[in-house]
Amino acid sequence: MSSPGTAAVVGCGVIGAAWAARMALSGIDVAVFDPDPGAEGLLADVTDNAVTAWRALGLPTDERGTIDIASSTAEAVRDAEFVQESVPERPELKATVLEAIESAARPETVIASSTSGIRPTLMQATMTHPDRLVVGHPFNPVYLLPLVEVVGGEQTAPTTIETAAAIYRGLGMRPLHVRVEIDAFIADRLLEAVWREALWLITDGVATTAEIDDAITYGFGLRWAQMGLFETYRVAGGAGGFRHFIEQFGPTLEWPWSRLTDTPAFTPELIDTIVAQSDRQSGGHDARELERIRDRNLVGFLKVLEANRWGAGTTLIEQRAARRRAGSAAHDEQSH
Amino acid sequence: MSSPGTAAVVGCGVIGAAWAARMALSGIDVAVFDPDPGAEGLLADVTDNAVTAWRALGLPTDERGTIDIASSTAEAVRDAEFVQESVPERPELKATVLEAIESAARPETVIASSTSGIRPTLMQATMTHPDRLVVGHPFNPVYLLPLVEVVGGEQTAPTTIETAAAIYRGLGMRPLHVRVEIDAFIADRLLEAVWREALWLITDGVATTAEIDDAITYGFGLRWAQMGLFETYRVAGGAGGFRHFIEQFGPTLEWPWSRLTDTPAFTPELIDTIVAQSDRQSGGHDARELERIRDRNLVGFLKVLEANRWGAGTTLIEQRAARRRAGSAAHDEQSH
Repeated sequence: MSSPGTAAVVGCGVIGAAWAARMALSGIDVAVFDPDPGAEGLLADVTDNAVTAWRALGLPTDERGTIDIASSTAEAVRDAEFVQESVPERPELKATVLEAIESAARPETVIASSTSGIRPTLMQATMTHPDRLVVGHPFNPVYLLPLVEVVGGEQTAPTTIETAAAIYRGLGMRPLHVRVEIDAFIADRLLEAVWREALWLITDGVATTAEIDDAITYGFGLRWAQMGLFETYRVAGGAGGFRHFIEQFGPTLEWPWSRLTDTPAFTPELIDTIVAQSDRQSGGHDARELERIRDRNLVGFLKVLEANRWGAGTTLIEQRAARRRAGSAAHDEQSH
Repeated sequence: MSSPGTAAVVGCGVIGAAWAARMALSGIDVAVFDPDPGAEGLLADVTDNAVTAWRALGLPTDERGTIDIASSTAEAVRDAEFVQESVPERPELKATVLEAIESAARPETVIASSTSGIRPTLMQATMTHPDRLVVGHPFNPVYLLPLVEVVGGEQTAPTTIETAAAIYRGLGMRPLHVRVEIDAFIADRLLEAVWREALWLITDGVATTAEIDDAITYGFGLRWAQMGLFETYRVAGGAGGFRHFIEQFGPTLEWPWSRLTDTPAFTPELIDTIVAQSDRQSGGHDARELERIRDRNLVGFLKVLEANRWGAGTTLIEQRAARRRAGSAAHDEQSH
């Protein structure tokens, strides 16, 4: 199944609502349930945002599926070919909701959970058909960000993972199969580390939330919208590749430069592993080529931000204004 | 001094070369010294990239200052109104180079160091005029990323910090004054935390460099090019603001969801501090407005990446192709 005709979203907060919008925009008829009476208004708002965004991207928005509000979980999932659970992150609540989904859904329906960190093995422990549970962890705003982490538990069937990944691809997303099941998967482990270090910076009075955010958005945030941690530093290493970079930079990772200092031993084997992985990842482009690709992307981002008068784009606005002032001052001087 | 007529760059690797290019493009005559005979070629390559990037941004590139290769540090800095030291991250090397700069530069010249983490107080300990040393920590590629962390040491004069910040603004950059001197300043503390968690993911065999990079570039990296950690989650918190978000999400930060688990105590005082800072930072826009700003920026980034056939843009390319195939299949069906 690459694209189901019907789907259900159980739990309609910011994440569930955006799932429903993304599915409907992809032509799927969606049934949504949330006990909160405010969910319907949120759903309408999020769907508006999603339609605006897809229009701006030039994606078709006129072959939309329907979105229906169901009066119970059972009603929402009864005819669904795919269920996305998106209730709050409380293990006991997840268990109750999964039970309600299972008792009403068709036995073959794949049930995906939006959890950002609970292991599927824990969630499926109390299920009747645990083989059909999989984690499909999206990122806010779900109707725009392509990433979805797909994680199976010990009892998840391989076909369940394949089905979920195919459905997500049908929604224009990028499923990332997390092969080893751990708490918080991949992205949120990185995010948690940043959170913790940021909380230390605030606790220690070093920086405010605005200063921390500026340190991100005017600097490495622009890099990470297009190349991740490893590809970015590969480019910085130049023609010497990742080995050159890591030999220069690696030792500083063992300096106590952050509050979070638990570093794995920097063995030659770990370095070999990273170098080999990075070569496989980015070896198709040489460093010069990657530099040009990076710069083209950054130029594009900065122009977007300038047009929207936001963040790093404001430095460009100020720079152009300063140039104009300098130019007209020079002109005035000539006129006198 | 908002824009010096002359400047020196000592140390011409990827960072020093890009400083020289950014300065020359801003109309400053730059003298560069690096003992490595390969530096001249690197400088030419980086300057080419910088000119291409500034042209693509629509910034003027024809009123450039000159770039001269000096035969020694002394020759490079003798007539400079501003010096940017960019040699490798070895404290003893920094000390030697700073001594050579000081003995030849005019006594009033501000000397900035590109160090990404060494405290200026340590570097200025052996200097004759320590009041004029400041850290100006840029981000690669320096000719495109606006962020520069400006950090004074115990002996740095307030005017030194002001001068450096004004010069950086004159280069179209965004100086971020790091008010409390700590190792690795702000951005690199966050980056170190990510590095360490990423190394654990590789060491534990959970993810490869490519998978980690995908988790960044298809997901939260797109967010961070325009809103940082706190503003992003403020938006996710919706109308309830940051307090609502942190009350929902805060507890999960105390779950052992990463290898780096050293979290500051989540006291009501810390929550109050964060909420107040976030209100000051983003309170001028309500959550709905921030959502629309975020979406406009993301749409722009995704279109840039699609035009460059890169990263998250490839999901859009595939999505459009799938739509076309579905459309032509429907058309074929109708024709039969």
